[in-house]
Amino acid sequence: MPSIVESVGEDVHELSEGDTVIPIFLPDCAECADCTSKRSNLCSKIPFEVSPWLPGDGTSRFTDLKGETLYHFLFVSSFSEYTVVDTANVTKVDPAIPPNRACLLSCGVSTGVGAAWRTANVEAGSTVVIFGLGAIGLAVAEGARLCGAKKIIGVDINPEKFETGKIFGVTDFVDSRSCGDKPVRQVINEMTNGGADYCFECVGMASLVEDAYACCRKGWGKTVVLGVDKPGAELRFRSFDVLHLGKTLMGSLFGGLKPKSDISTLVKRYMNKMNCKGKNNKPRACLEYAYKVYF
Amino acid sequence: MPSIVESVGEDVHELSEGDTVIPIFLPDCAECADCTSKRSNLCSKIPFEVSPWLPGDGTSRFTDLKGETLYHFLFVSSFSEYTVVDTANVTKVDPAIPPNRACLLSCGVSTGVGAAWRTANVEAGSTVVIFGLGAIGLAVAEGARLCGAKKIIGVDINPEKFETGKIFGVTDFVDSRSCGDKPVRQVINEMTNGGADYCFECVGMASLVEDAYACCRKGWGKTVVLGVDKPGAELRFRSFDVLHLGKTLMGSLFGGLKPKSDISTLVKRYMNKMNCKGKNNKPRACLEYAYKVYF
Repeated sequence: MPSIVESVGEDVHELSEGDTVIPIFLPDCAECADCTSKRSNLCSKIPFEVSPWLPGDGTSRFTDLKGETLYHFLFVSSFSEYTVVDTANVTKVDPAIPPNRACLLSCGVSTGVGAAWRTANVEAGSTVVIFGLGAIGLAVAEGARLCGAKKIIGVDINPEKFETGKIFGVTDFVDSRSCGDKPVRQVINEMTNGGADYCFECVGMASLVEDAYACCRKGWGKTVVLGVDKPGAELRFRSFDVLHLGKTLMGSLFGGLKPKSDISTLVKRYMNKMNCKGKNNKPRACLEYAYKVYF
Repeated sequence: MPSIVESVGEDVHELSEGDTVIPIFLPDCAECADCTSKRSNLCSKIPFEVSPWLPGDGTSRFTDLKGETLYHFLFVSSFSEYTVVDTANVTKVDPAIPPNRACLLSCGVSTGVGAAWRTANVEAGSTVVIFGLGAIGLAVAEGARLCGAKKIIGVDINPEKFETGKIFGVTDFVDSRSCGDKPVRQVINEMTNGGADYCFECVGMASLVEDAYACCRKGWGKTVVLGVDKPGAELRFRSFDVLHLGKTLMGSLFGGLKPKSDISTLVKRYMNKMNCKGKNNKPRACLEYAYKVYF
């Protein structure tokens, strides 16, 4: 959820008491080689961790009921009413954005939209396959739609997801449990005449990453991994395929977006959309759809 | 080797008797979606095969001493004195190019130079690691040097390769058998302050591809696979690493080059270099160095 700054430390100058901020799990120190480069969103000064200490001073500000130390969760511990967060993990936003919309940019919507827009850089007219139509997968569809993708195929085991998917731009649906004798990869290769330009894995299953790779078109297909698999999970590819098929495999944490600059852009875009309504008085604002679907 | 056209079939118009051509294993039909796209060099009309029939008519023109049918080898069978080749597998070149230089563009030099130049698109000032300093690896060094790479680290088990490597642009050398207790990936991560911008695997060993991936810098590192491993070999990556480290894995067949247009460019470049000598009368022409080293 977006938060209100209750107080700031003595060396904090970019934020003030009362500011509206979005806590974001991925640090953006704005100083290191990664944070100052357009090519990376993986801060070197504060490397991503699941359960870290507070990075500034190596302490924890949390205890449980018995007084035992608790670690941070993803740097922000945003499920607690009050939290102590490094400035690298908050983005100041326009206070006019409704909190229940802004919070969607803290992970799910940003990750999906960013993966299509920033990591994959989906080209207009292209064909996209999305494995898993949860919050992330639906946002990938929105990002691919914004980039001008022509065909956006959603793959899920729940056919009801297709109706929801259409709102976000999904044009075709594959129920992977109803493909009969055909493997999903064969079904999709037939639907795309030899493979999609971009495939996104949004579930967190190694076998689906391998399916996604197999569904990418030879020569230029890109597979983007967004799903979080269990610890120790391995992805396996035939060496022959990697060499001979000219495909690309990429990972995308937080959609490749920069937590400060890119999220401000998305917030502004949403606010502009809401203030400038289109025909039928229905703005095409992803966060509105996402809010209706997710909550 | 470059060849002289002895005769052409009745529907062949782009070549004539007496033309000098380079036979190239990768077809370029100039018509299909791949051959007409800038993004791919993997012909869809004549897919790459190791031991195919003649693609035009599905026949073989070769027999052994007993009259048994022989298959083509890589579409060109260029070890024979006479061969029958589809026009998709020959590139017409300036007959002034010496045959013992031109032949280097048929696979090794083109594959290496192209992998750095076209597949990876190495940026000026970047850091490159090359696993294996054979014909392909040395050509990668040359390609990376031409792209302006600042640091080019060669990895090999034969330290004598370093002297040869310097001619092609290698600036640093790692003898992977003399790293003591340190894994090669640790040595290279220390030399590159956290990983190289580009890593190229030019041996054909799955474990080296995994090393190369581990030696790539998080955020933007690219690993390019050029080596041909044994059939059935598998590449394994931790799902966690692929998601969290923002690296890219790519394959590169024939260096991502288009057999007709790009090879003509390389031939012209060589001829210009040879006709326009630099200081000390020593042209910086990769094929000259390659010829001296390879033969």
